[in-house]
Amino acid sequence: MNAILASAFAEALPRAADFRGGAAYIDGRFMPLAEAAIPITDWAYRRSDVTYDVTSVWKGAFFRLDDHIERFRRSMNGLRLSPPQSDGEIRDIAIACVRLAQLQDAYVGMDCLRGRPQPGKPSHPAYARNYIAVFARPFVWLIPPEVQARGAHLVVAQVPRIPDDSVDPRIKNFHWGDLTRALFEAHDQGADGAVLLDHGGFVTEGPGYNVFAVRRGTVIVSDHGSLEGITRRTVMELCAQLGIACEARPYSVDELRVADEIFLSTTAGGIMPVARLDGRILGNDRPGPISSRLRLAFWAKRESGWYGTKVDYRLPE
Amino acid sequence: MNAILASAFAEALPRAADFRGGAAYIDGRFMPLAEAAIPITDWAYRRSDVTYDVTSVWKGAFFRLDDHIERFRRSMNGLRLSPPQSDGEIRDIAIACVRLAQLQDAYVGMDCLRGRPQPGKPSHPAYARNYIAVFARPFVWLIPPEVQARGAHLVVAQVPRIPDDSVDPRIKNFHWGDLTRALFEAHDQGADGAVLLDHGGFVTEGPGYNVFAVRRGTVIVSDHGSLEGITRRTVMELCAQLGIACEARPYSVDELRVADEIFLSTTAGGIMPVARLDGRILGNDRPGPISSRLRLAFWAKRESGWYGTKVDYRLPE
Repeated sequence: MNAILASAFAEALPRAADFRGGAAYIDGRFMPLAEAAIPITDWAYRRSDVTYDVTSVWKGAFFRLDDHIERFRRSMNGLRLSPPQSDGEIRDIAIACVRLAQLQDAYVGMDCLRGRPQPGKPSHPAYARNYIAVFARPFVWLIPPEVQARGAHLVVAQVPRIPDDSVDPRIKNFHWGDLTRALFEAHDQGADGAVLLDHGGFVTEGPGYNVFAVRRGTVIVSDHGSLEGITRRTVMELCAQLGIACEARPYSVDELRVADEIFLSTTAGGIMPVARLDGRILGNDRPGPISSRLRLAFWAKRESGWYGTKVDYRLPE
Repeated sequence: MNAILASAFAEALPRAADFRGGAAYIDGRFMPLAEAAIPITDWAYRRSDVTYDVTSVWKGAFFRLDDHIERFRRSMNGLRLSPPQSDGEIRDIAIACVRLAQLQDAYVGMDCLRGRPQPGKPSHPAYARNYIAVFARPFVWLIPPEVQARGAHLVVAQVPRIPDDSVDPRIKNFHWGDLTRALFEAHDQGADGAVLLDHGGFVTEGPGYNVFAVRRGTVIVSDHGSLEGITRRTVMELCAQLGIACEARPYSVDELRVADEIFLSTTAGGIMPVARLDGRILGNDRPGPISSRLRLAFWAKRESGWYGTKVDYRLPE
């Protein structure tokens, strides 16, 4: 930790008890998560002019922390956001939030916000002062573990995904209007989640996850119109290690509908099997064999320290 | 004002001096604008799951306040947002913010936020507790008056507008990723603003404004892919009153490029003439005659009390 960060961290320590279970850092200062808030006039909120990343801590270790920070930086560059912190400082802040929150299993969000118009400067995003917000909270399951165990029920959403020439999905963003509508479509049909298609009928992603189909032993995932998920990348690496064929390419909703298995990948839940699509039962209405094998391998390898960064939870007296 | 609002207002009064120049109301409480903030974990921020409206106060009077609140309610219904406040209460809150801020000329934003996952309930937006935030700040000019006087310089953005089947632009939203990219395109070319096309090459809108073309004495405005602006509606009414032909219909970028005049409409600035498009000079590089006539009529009628709601600025002793 550099001197400025160390000083901010030291200021937080007398209130350490308030940080338990949720800690945040916004623009230079640590605070309990319950106090973490964004000015209502910030363009990060009023124009969703912000990018973010999410990493996780499981049994005391971050997963692929540097890969997440590397992607976070690419997203910031893509939006011309330049906060004062280096990648190393962002890394230190993320670890500090988890230490303050004392969470063994955590969801760690990192945002880079555009900021507000500055006095005496033109009211244009090019002149705003960008800044970083990071927070650690208890691990979030996008799909609850008990639903994963029976296999999630998905619908194909009617609402098409925002096209990538309007908003680039590889730059993680909060433009969830289409994804939220898809969540309501799923909810209205009693399903657990949704998959969105592009305007040409090809699979993109769901609200917070990449979508994989398995057909005749081959795993297929979209190569466009969706986030380049770190867990998605991990699935591809696991396939290579386990000798499972895996293809990243455009695939249509028709291919999804005849899949033998479907599963989802996300930082907030890992690899999550699907048992039904639009009411059609996949396999025997339970997680399929390849999905289950990947899911087990994911958690086993992760708990063994794969791509892990151990957190030192000790706080100074 | 109902009893709960009156009590919240009374609580704010001892700090009245802190509210001068900017006042907000969030979820039951008034506060100085500088303290108004949104929880970092709120879906309104993290998923841009929020709608809003903006109205303005000029020389002590709101303009079309009830029309704005009516549209705000339609937007909330469109996103299935149900805050506890009635339209009348939202009206009272907006007026109260302007009174507290003591602003004769104000920009008044009203947001309805999705809220956060509720303890013991599924983590789905259907179960969140929605709430209202309102604020009054000094009047904002989307394009500065001195730029309006010479006529704004616009570019046609390369980035296409998010299509309306993915995110409905008639529901006012903060999905500004495409609009922000267009603002940077304009900035890079030394222009003041941008107009975005749909994926078929038809004019939609710009960052915060509707776009009008004038050709052979007829005013043309898009009828799709854009917000149904209240100022846009006002322009159409003014045209009818002044005997100027006005058509709301799809129009292509080719029609825009051969326009005799172009002007913009927005709550944050009224009717704003354009003098150049992609470097091409319109007319004699100054606001065109019809644009100027409409702009003058707009401000004159407005200052005469047209569609006005006068604010009573007196505060209890």
